Amino acid sequence: MMKDQISKRVDDLRQWLKNYDLEAYILPSTDPHAGEYIPAYWQCRQWISGFDGSAGTAVVTLDDAALWTDSRYFIAATQALADTPFCLMKERVEGTPSIADWLGQKIKRGGKVGIDGKVFTYRDALALQDELARYDISVVADFSAPDELWVEDRPKLPDSDIVVQPLEWAGETVASKINRLMDEVERMGCSQMLVSQLDEVAWLLNLRGADVHCNPVFVAYCIVGRNGATLYCDPMKINSDVAAYLDQNNVKVADYYKAELDLMRSQTITLVSPLTNAAMAMCAFNAEKGTAVVADSPIASMKAVKNRQEIRGMRQAMLQDGVALVKWLRWLSEAVPRGGETELSIDAKLTELRKEHADFRGLSFDTIAAYNEHGAIVHYEATPETDVPLKPEGILLVDTGAQYVCGTTDITRTILLGSSATDEQKKVYTLVLKGHIALSRLKFPRGASGTQLDLAARSDMWREGYNFGHGTGHGVGAYLNVHEGPHQIRMNYMPAPIVEGMTVTDEPGLYLEGRFGVRIENVLLCVPYMETEFGTFVGFEPLTLCPIDKRLIDTTMLCDTEKEWLNDYHCHVVETLLPLLDDEADRDWLKEACKPLG
Amino acid sequence: MMKDQISKRVDDLRQWLKNYDLEAYILPSTDPHAGEYIPAYWQCRQWISGFDGSAGTAVVTLDDAALWTDSRYFIAATQALADTPFCLMKERVEGTPSIADWLGQKIKRGGKVGIDGKVFTYRDALALQDELARYDISVVADFSAPDELWVEDRPKLPDSDIVVQPLEWAGETVASKINRLMDEVERMGCSQMLVSQLDEVAWLLNLRGADVHCNPVFVAYCIVGRNGATLYCDPMKINSDVAAYLDQNNVKVADYYKAELDLMRSQTITLVSPLTNAAMAMCAFNAEKGTAVVADSPIASMKAVKNRQEIRGMRQAMLQDGVALVKWLRWLSEAVPRGGETELSIDAKLTELRKEHADFRGLSFDTIAAYNEHGAIVHYEATPETDVPLKPEGILLVDTGAQYVCGTTDITRTILLGSSATDEQKKVYTLVLKGHIALSRLKFPRGASGTQLDLAARSDMWREGYNFGHGTGHGVGAYLNVHEGPHQIRMNYMPAPIVEGMTVTDEPGLYLEGRFGVRIENVLLCVPYMETEFGTFVGFEPLTLCPIDKRLIDTTMLCDTEKEWLNDYHCHVVETLLPLLDDEADRDWLKEACKPLG
Repeated sequence: MMKDQISKRVDDLRQWLKNYDLEAYILPSTDPHAGEYIPAYWQCRQWISGFDGSAGTAVVTLDDAALWTDSRYFIAATQALADTPFCLMKERVEGTPSIADWLGQKIKRGGKVGIDGKVFTYRDALALQDELARYDISVVADFSAPDELWVEDRPKLPDSDIVVQPLEWAGETVASKINRLMDEVERMGCSQMLVSQLDEVAWLLNLRGADVHCNPVFVAYCIVGRNGATLYCDPMKINSDVAAYLDQNNVKVADYYKAELDLMRSQTITLVSPLTNAAMAMCAFNAEKGTAVVADSPIASMKAVKNRQEIRGMRQAMLQDGVALVKWLRWLSEAVPRGGETELSIDAKLTELRKEHADFRGLSFDTIAAYNEHGAIVHYEATPETDVPLKPEGILLVDTGAQYVCGTTDITRTILLGSSATDEQKKVYTLVLKGHIALSRLKFPRGASGTQLDLAARSDMWREGYNFGHGTGHGVGAYLNVHEGPHQIRMNYMPAPIVEGMTVTDEPGLYLEGRFGVRIENVLLCVPYMETEFGTFVGFEPLTLCPIDKRLIDTTMLCDTEKEWLNDYHCHVVETLLPLLDDEADRDWLKEACKPLG
Repeated sequence: MMKDQISKRVDDLRQWLKNYDLEAYILPSTDPHAGEYIPAYWQCRQWISGFDGSAGTAVVTLDDAALWTDSRYFIAATQALADTPFCLMKERVEGTPSIADWLGQKIKRGGKVGIDGKVFTYRDALALQDELARYDISVVADFSAPDELWVEDRPKLPDSDIVVQPLEWAGETVASKINRLMDEVERMGCSQMLVSQLDEVAWLLNLRGADVHCNPVFVAYCIVGRNGATLYCDPMKINSDVAAYLDQNNVKVADYYKAELDLMRSQTITLVSPLTNAAMAMCAFNAEKGTAVVADSPIASMKAVKNRQEIRGMRQAMLQDGVALVKWLRWLSEAVPRGGETELSIDAKLTELRKEHADFRGLSFDTIAAYNEHGAIVHYEATPETDVPLKPEGILLVDTGAQYVCGTTDITRTILLGSSATDEQKKVYTLVLKGHIALSRLKFPRGASGTQLDLAARSDMWREGYNFGHGTGHGVGAYLNVHEGPHQIRMNYMPAPIVEGMTVTDEPGLYLEGRFGVRIENVLLCVPYMETEFGTFVGFEPLTLCPIDKRLIDTTMLCDTEKEWLNDYHCHVVETLLPLLDDEADRDWLKEACKPLG
């Protein structure tokens, strides 16, 4: 039935292509705000193809249809696309053409390919244009096929209420943020900025929402100048308190769809980020008397450096999360041997324990609870189909995070479910732990880039011939998105400087296909270290509060400094969390888990 | 007298500017081949300004004249420029304008600035053009002022004989090199390549020369295609043996100045590197039936990976250099207490000892022998004015390298001249040694970049609040330039992958202004390490053979692994060099210097 719908939609799209004299249409998995999670309203690639993985691009020509996705989704996409007009294109597999190369084969020279400029970033649209130009194919970004064809059953735009993030947690007034931002914007030769990323809008105006899965943001644009800002969003989201707050802060409110028009009519030069969607960027370029400058948003670097209140809030969130995690780990240690628990059931239990705190606002990403070989699948997310019962043996990888009104958490622990680990499990776990400790202990010149620091987490495992493919660390928002830029710690080039006040995760891992996976993750805060004639040096302080499973450690592989680090960390965890635990069983479990290594 | 000459030259240049309707002329410290050392013929900035430091750019307008140089030369340039029309512009000092910004202030909108396109790289000329365009100033690259004005006393183009580098050391025939190169060139859509960097010409054709200080190269261009190459150089450099060799290898010879014309008349697409001089690049772009592609020269990566014979040659060069160094260090240990030695005299003695080997061909760079506070000046080079006597106290930093027909060396040792070191000297020395050892011991995935590896050399010193500003490592040629790309190990971004067969220096240092400097440098060879399910891992093997002064080590700061590394290294050095030493005193000194740490 569903498969028939897909065929019908593709047929309708092909008819639509003919009406507009287009040869093909591209539907990506992105939305107008370059977000990580896409509201259902914009899940157009899912609509056209039926494939609902988080990453994928559908391309439909008059005669062909194909969907590109990465190795995480090869199996799911194969199933979803069977008996549909789509063939699967396996990204980063030898022989798979790029979308542009494929289109170059499939459609005629001089042909036109349609995209919805709203759901392509300016950067990606330009790149696509360049690639297709090699085949003398042009890109038309003016019409949205889904807007015309996806009428029935299209989900509504999300409509959660906007709430004010209290200054107690935001730590800086909107006026102060706008002033600092405009200093940067003017330095770049512009008089206003279009803010299009949802976490940037939320941060700038000290507002939060619930429009997007796991991200406490709301769908909006903001145009900000020296004398105030205009917030473009559905006015129904704004109650009278928020309206009064916005008015006090000199923020006007206009309808979401009016942002385009206002940009077009602008009399000044607008700063737009390369992550702005192409349609809005073109409005800024075609402004009546202004034009646009494309440059990275200064908000990313401003937001990345947490102020005192935000740091206080992050610490409080870690406390609340730490309590829930300890209760859960203690429960887990009893529940697994009792039997009947699965990857999904323990996930639900953790959420239930987190909900006990009034500040809890939801998860910061979908929990990964991955047992044994599932732990070796880096982006594993248990579903009813893959869910497995947990036995009192083997190891469990849990990567999870929560949103609290005061801050955001992100933690990974790898837990022994049985009574003893294999030598290989211990070796791999200890290599990951050594990497985690080395990065956490690292001191470095203020402003070093993540690329320069990444080696700390990897050099011990490299010596043993192990490595991992993902990044080692990312910024974490303060009751905002769990993945934040501009800094990252990873092997490829990430030039953004790391400075005091930034949060960053420390999450090396190792994944042995078909066997098990290990990852150990804390959120770190960059803190001052020392000033010398050679400059300012900084270091890290772990914010995350939760024991690291000692039963998986091969203590002979740790040097004294590493043991000392672990003992100090556990000492800090137990001292901080113990006063917050009432249940004697939880307290005993925590004390045992935090006992120093011999 | 000299100062009067400078004024006269500037006056002549200004008259010349008026004749050509130019507002200013820029004279950089570069030559047509983007070399590190500039033949006297092209030292036009020295000619116009009188300032003879290695780095500096002179700019003359109708009314003003200024010279930009960096902090190494502030004192020397101030003296050289006194009573000349030039004012000194201190690079990277707050308030110093860029050349473009300065010209923007000094000359009128719509004005024209002259450069000699031959002595600007294509990349630099484009950048200058972009910067000056902001002031509506255009760049004219068609006329060489020095060629018209510097007639009397201009040094001749260097005219050393070209010699063939035997296949015994080159390890690969010209035909094979050209075939491999043309595979790359054709992959980039070109049918021929203009080779303009002198070490690339020398490598490709297995030739060497003596036209450039410390670099065994000769002034030439080469245009290479699938069916052979043309070498553009002064035919007087080529004796009958070399002529026969070139003929056998299907290499035609043409006059140096004919390269331009041949490029212009070319019927095909030419690959030019961004380091090609702007004049030649424009010839390639304006070719009759072809055009040009600008991309990094594939030769850099090919040349960086040494073949078996080149590695054998590098090892032999290290042996020869090691013998000279040991003799010299033993001599130094007796000569300094005797008195009468200076930075310059010990430098001369080392060269004399190196000359004892028939394979010695000269230094690979001017020796840095820097006593106490001179060691803290990173680019110190003793002159008769700065030279100081060495006393049996304090420490001496010696950075030196030699050219042998079989390979090139580069070594730094820091030597205690007295009987005991201060605690600070030991701490700093040991931090540098720890960094040296950590990089030398590092294992990493094949193809990692130098930026990813740099932390190894720095993390221990960062923990103590120390750092150094220069790079940690560079490639070393095989009887070619001592500084080779494309890979480097340094804090800033160097994406070139490091793979087996590459040489790279390991040279962390620390410099305490006004007190002393420490650097410890070996040349390393990248070698295979292991293959696992996580990929191919590689490591390093030190090629340099010379004891590292143990008397400056604070052994309490070294862990067992570090001590073991040092003892293993010294064991290898003594085993390798001892059989080559005849003098019992040298042998005893080496045995003592290589005794294991307790």
